[in-house]
Amino acid sequence: MSNKKVVLAYSGGLDTTVIIPWLKENYNYDVIAACIDVGQGNETEGLEERALKSGASKFYLKTVTEEFITDYIYPTMKAGAVYETSYMLGTSMARPLIAKVLVDIALQEGAEAICHGATGKGNDQVRFELTIKALAPQLKIIAPWRIWDMQSREDEIAYCQERGIECPVKKGDSYSRDRNIWHISHEGLELEDPAQEPNYDKLLKLGVTPQAAPDQGTAISISFEKGIPVAINGEAMDPVTLLTTLNELGGQNGIGIVDILENRVVGMKSRGVYETPGGTILYKAHEQLEHMCLDKQTYAYKQTIAIKFAELVYSGEWFTPLREALSAFVDSTQEVITGTVHLVLYKGNIIPAGCTSPNSLYNESIASFTTGELYDHKDAEGFINLFGLSMKIRGMLNNSKN
Amino acid sequence: MSNKKVVLAYSGGLDTTVIIPWLKENYNYDVIAACIDVGQGNETEGLEERALKSGASKFYLKTVTEEFITDYIYPTMKAGAVYETSYMLGTSMARPLIAKVLVDIALQEGAEAICHGATGKGNDQVRFELTIKALAPQLKIIAPWRIWDMQSREDEIAYCQERGIECPVKKGDSYSRDRNIWHISHEGLELEDPAQEPNYDKLLKLGVTPQAAPDQGTAISISFEKGIPVAINGEAMDPVTLLTTLNELGGQNGIGIVDILENRVVGMKSRGVYETPGGTILYKAHEQLEHMCLDKQTYAYKQTIAIKFAELVYSGEWFTPLREALSAFVDSTQEVITGTVHLVLYKGNIIPAGCTSPNSLYNESIASFTTGELYDHKDAEGFINLFGLSMKIRGMLNNSKN
Amino acid sequence: MSNKKVVLAYSGGLDTTVIIPWLKENYNYDVIAACIDVGQGNETEGLEERALKSGASKFYLKTVTEEFITDYIYPTMKAGAVYETSYMLGTSMARPLIAKVLVDIALQEGAEAICHGATGKGNDQVRFELTIKALAPQLKIIAPWRIWDMQSREDEIAYCQERGIECPVKKGDSYSRDRNIWHISHEGLELEDPAQEPNYDKLLKLGVTPQAAPDQGTAISISFEKGIPVAINGEAMDPVTLLTTLNELGGQNGIGIVDILENRVVGMKSRGVYETPGGTILYKAHEQLEHMCLDKQTYAYKQTIAIKFAELVYSGEWFTPLREALSAFVDSTQEVITGTVHLVLYKGNIIPAGCTSPNSLYNESIASFTTGELYDHKDAEGFINLFGLSMKIRGMLNNSKN
Amino acid sequence: MSNKKVVLAYSGGLDTTVIIPWLKENYNYDVIAACIDVGQGNETEGLEERALKSGASKFYLKTVTEEFITDYIYPTMKAGAVYETSYMLGTSMARPLIAKVLVDIALQEGAEAICHGATGKGNDQVRFELTIKALAPQLKIIAPWRIWDMQSREDEIAYCQERGIECPVKKGDSYSRDRNIWHISHEGLELEDPAQEPNYDKLLKLGVTPQAAPDQGTAISISFEKGIPVAINGEAMDPVTLLTTLNELGGQNGIGIVDILENRVVGMKSRGVYETPGGTILYKAHEQLEHMCLDKQTYAYKQTIAIKFAELVYSGEWFTPLREALSAFVDSTQEVITGTVHLVLYKGNIIPAGCTSPNSLYNESIASFTTGELYDHKDAEGFINLFGLSMKIRGMLNNSKN
Repeated sequence: MSNKKVVLAYSGGLDTTVIIPWLKENYNYDVIAACIDVGQGNETEGLEERALKSGASKFYLKTVTEEFITDYIYPTMKAGAVYETSYMLGTSMARPLIAKVLVDIALQEGAEAICHGATGKGNDQVRFELTIKALAPQLKIIAPWRIWDMQSREDEIAYCQERGIECPVKKGDSYSRDRNIWHISHEGLELEDPAQEPNYDKLLKLGVTPQAAPDQGTAISISFEKGIPVAINGEAMDPVTLLTTLNELGGQNGIGIVDILENRVVGMKSRGVYETPGGTILYKAHEQLEHMCLDKQTYAYKQTIAIKFAELVYSGEWFTPLREALSAFVDSTQEVITGTVHLVLYKGNIIPAGCTSPNSLYNESIASFTTGELYDHKDAEGFINLFGLSMKIRGMLNNSKN
Repeated sequence: MSNKKVVLAYSGGLDTTVIIPWLKENYNYDVIAACIDVGQGNETEGLEERALKSGASKFYLKTVTEEFITDYIYPTMKAGAVYETSYMLGTSMARPLIAKVLVDIALQEGAEAICHGATGKGNDQVRFELTIKALAPQLKIIAPWRIWDMQSREDEIAYCQERGIECPVKKGDSYSRDRNIWHISHEGLELEDPAQEPNYDKLLKLGVTPQAAPDQGTAISISFEKGIPVAINGEAMDPVTLLTTLNELGGQNGIGIVDILENRVVGMKSRGVYETPGGTILYKAHEQLEHMCLDKQTYAYKQTIAIKFAELVYSGEWFTPLREALSAFVDSTQEVITGTVHLVLYKGNIIPAGCTSPNSLYNESIASFTTGELYDHKDAEGFINLFGLSMKIRGMLNNSKN
Repeated sequence: MSNKKVVLAYSGGLDTTVIIPWLKENYNYDVIAACIDVGQGNETEGLEERALKSGASKFYLKTVTEEFITDYIYPTMKAGAVYETSYMLGTSMARPLIAKVLVDIALQEGAEAICHGATGKGNDQVRFELTIKALAPQLKIIAPWRIWDMQSREDEIAYCQERGIECPVKKGDSYSRDRNIWHISHEGLELEDPAQEPNYDKLLKLGVTPQAAPDQGTAISISFEKGIPVAINGEAMDPVTLLTTLNELGGQNGIGIVDILENRVVGMKSRGVYETPGGTILYKAHEQLEHMCLDKQTYAYKQTIAIKFAELVYSGEWFTPLREALSAFVDSTQEVITGTVHLVLYKGNIIPAGCTSPNSLYNESIASFTTGELYDHKDAEGFINLFGLSMKIRGMLNNSKN
Repeated sequence: MSNKKVVLAYSGGLDTTVIIPWLKENYNYDVIAACIDVGQGNETEGLEERALKSGASKFYLKTVTEEFITDYIYPTMKAGAVYETSYMLGTSMARPLIAKVLVDIALQEGAEAICHGATGKGNDQVRFELTIKALAPQLKIIAPWRIWDMQSREDEIAYCQERGIECPVKKGDSYSRDRNIWHISHEGLELEDPAQEPNYDKLLKLGVTPQAAPDQGTAISISFEKGIPVAINGEAMDPVTLLTTLNELGGQNGIGIVDILENRVVGMKSRGVYETPGGTILYKAHEQLEHMCLDKQTYAYKQTIAIKFAELVYSGEWFTPLREALSAFVDSTQEVITGTVHLVLYKGNIIPAGCTSPNSLYNESIASFTTGELYDHKDAEGFINLFGLSMKIRGMLNNSKN
């Protein structure tokens, strides 16, 4: 066929099913459906058949879960980046990778455009499109939700039925969700009213509430090398196994559930509930080790860096010089983040239970009450006198005016 | 008497009991013992008698618990300041107030010096002395632990016994603690080895562990006006009652226990366990309301301000132009932080359960999936095109080089 | 007349002249032309006649030069805000005030919309429109350059001639300029090629190049109260007179010319030459006084605040909670910025020539080589030992590994 | 000899001459005098003889000028670091390198201690000693000015004369200076009164005042590769030649003279005049190229990084994890800082005269007034609508309350 081609970010859901015939009708494109697997669970089965039946000319399934962990999750975790103190960036980190793989396929296929099913109100359109602009600015971007007249699920179903395409209808009352190996997000229904409590019993997918977690906690240890987790309970694991293990442990123990009103890139607030069971454990463990191995100034400045890092990731600015420069900063600090952290997981709590590191800056003889060789109590007077000198001068000045 | 006077920060413990005769012998001072009550519980009873018996010429008991809350705790809470992501600054905030009251007494009494019993390795000496330098730079400061030869509790007891002074001996194996209405801190014993788990059963004073908390959670609401908590469950309360109530609720539910290796002002790491039951609830509630009422940019910048604010408070730099300027920033942002936050307290968890505010920036019609009047999906394309313009130009430049 | 009304930001130039008939034809509006005078010089004469001749139904001339200085320029100068290290925000600060006055007129007139002549590529559209959205979100905004088909000056002239409207044609080879009492900006022509040197002889309006300035410098003093300039050479002056005086002195001496490639809000780079003669002197003088009266930490943090302040002003975000909170920070620091600064203006240089302040933190007896009462050289050892303690511990750790 | 050894930072001046016999008498050390040449001009001649005559057992002259430029100056310049907006860190950058070489010699010689002649009030003691603590924490540090009883130059001269040691007396009325290839600093005399104008005619060493500079300016170009200057006027030069050339050009043209009241590390203010002729040109040129090649966000964040970088360098914290992490950030941004900058040097002014770079993000077709392919004016509306959405929502909220 001599048609021009478009690569469609395809999930097999209603939205992207509808988009296939819509693209063919409105652009006369050959539609290449591409499912990028970043650990969304069993949602990838049977996709190829469904895509071709819906009119796609070709189907790709690219599994990049490990790359997602090592090249997107770990840099973000090492930075300690959390958006607005609560959101652990699960969807935000996945989008640039997905878009990057779409670009790779588009270049390989000689496609003219990339199409995604993100809505015109959300963050994901921004994250997809910024990545495409950064990596392949010559590609056209098609975002049907900003173009077509369909306004609802019902419109989409009607559109499919008119064309005899089977559509994967979820119940109309379900939440809007995004899942990958790091997290699952939930939006919609009662969550749209911030005054309401989330209906956790219906909501949760990766674990249970703290209330439903077992009465007996779980003790674990996590070992890190240069900021990267490498073993659980002393057993070395590859990244996917390690994170999967932590997800199970965290989910069972009611860990990592967040309910937040957040500021979207496009200027509005929205409310989401997130489950990040393993990720929450990893962040906590990593932080414990940083408390042990980073000096005061580095720790303080890195906190500021983390805020900016999170903003960039949230806003889809992964492939930018600033994010790369921040990562260079972070990587430099991680040289010493090696050691083992002990934790107890218990009903939503992650309780520190001791930490060791060959790079520990803690020195028991200095920290203890009694005098040691390294530290002379008398030094403190000189320290305070100079540390407080400008306060004293200002105090004198103030006194002289009264 | 015509002796010169010193004001001693007096707690009635072993250290400050020893200091009274030591000051008299070494400086020939009249010793004015001053106990500044910032809510340390029943530790203030019988102090006057003990002070005078130990040789003090005068005794002051100043209760400034409400001032502590309104003028020190609330400004810090409004800032969202937490030191090194974990420590809620309970001792740090109290020291400048205590020192300020000591200065007030010294000026009123015409004393020449102020004396405190903080050690030469800790943060408290810095906090006391910086405040004195800022407020009354002409006063001498005496810090016996940096001067005398006593090295241990045993030395102190011997010193008392030689002089026939009764000494309030705690068991030799106890932790080093500091308590006020906001928190209690614990240091020493097994905590000096960061590899060891804290012995929570012996340690805790203000509450229980999550494991020991009741199986049934507690639902509460907290109402704020301009960032200040004013009511619990709809009942208006004065600051002391409100915080006391939250401490009880938090303590019962295993909330606010922190185990941290922190960087002291004087350059070493130390390990502490802190209980801040009510404070932890307040911070969480306040944060929920900020998520609702602050715009994205203000929220992000305020996070950075919070880090600096915490550094200053931790380091004893309360009475500085920078802390005051940061507070001016914070107060400006708090104009809109009015509303009610619902929470469930359960075994160490503080679970958000809905939030309302007359200043909410959340707009359901904008946030929801369907199109509304205020938001045109098509605007997003323009937004993304310009937001991503420099990324696209850079992408083109990179392409042109390949 | 029962027509709906629009308020047009009117300058009398070609663009806004064309817009009057265009608004009438396309919207059937009564056009209220409003010229907001922020000190653009003699450009306001004869405007009313021209506006009415062009079809406006009403004309306003609002002179807000003093408000511009006191409420926009001084807060920005006190912040020390400079965009991208060079641009002193002359146009950026004026736009929110102009828009605010337009809003006032629109509300008073019961107008439905505000129209401005800023182009679709520039910053000014953003600054105008954000202000309108913040202050009167119900008003429609009309930006003809983003709507109509005219592409050039020639199109506009033709449009006028077809309608028999006289048009104020500047020569086709002129620069694009914006002027107010703070500055003038120049864009276009040779400046569009960053490799080219600006043609200063044709460009400059407010002063001369350093090369053309007199061989004899001018010595002046500026006195400040709480960060606000109040007198020159000891003579108290109102804000307009003071700034006008400095503009003359600065312009004569070749001061305040900047040539910069800057990043616009809308994502592209553009190149401009700015003349800010008086403003450059004010910033330098203010900085001298801050060096004298601010302590180290406040000074350092205020530098960071200045960067954010400049970003916000540049981006049109004047009427935001964050800008207001930053101003609260700044105002707090300015309490002590009182004193007199001596400067020599000479061929582009502003040379400090001494400074005095009742709030000076400089203390000659401390700063000098010899020992004084306030400072004990021996304190330095203790200071360095503790300031460097974590470096020493890390050094020991590193050694132990080799 | 079996004596223990000390390495002395030796300049041949009065202070370090006195220290040699003082060390021998008070510590019974063998004194190894080490002069570290970082480009202080002809001051290194005849030093060995003088050192040995004064009683040193050994003399080292280490010339590390090129290392100073490439490993200390360039990283700082790439960061754009300037302390308190004015001081270009000439002495600050040299101290850690000098201390590092002293440590190298001490380790090689098996010395027990390092001794320096910096006073107890200044920054240099901090910079020397922090570096030694970081690199060789086991070494003792001896700072005679904090120990001995000598208080003045006269005391020192008497000390020498009593021992028959020739002393290199400068006139008693001279400034205190520090010079290297980057700059010279001046302190003392009339500078100790901040109200006084510097006596530039007596002061300056590396160049002339703007007033005394030639009436004809000098046009130059500087070429950079990844942030590093590599050629002047198209001629490739090694670092020492390049900086020497710029120093001459800058000095002739009255460039790089700074008069500043600065906040020392030890808490006091001091006043200095600095000459940094070549460095000032380099910073300006480098900044021009960054304006061309860095995107808005990277530029803004790098400005904040620069402030912290300067603080660390000024405070002697070169060999810290934070400085290294900041350098990693900076280096990441410098990948694209390649190109050529044209400047005119004229009587204190550095006037940009055009800039070119293969990595320029400036795109003339986008920046110009007319519409091009890459930029659709209509996108701006969508951009502004979303960029201003939260301002609009807040505006609506405010309106609803009135």
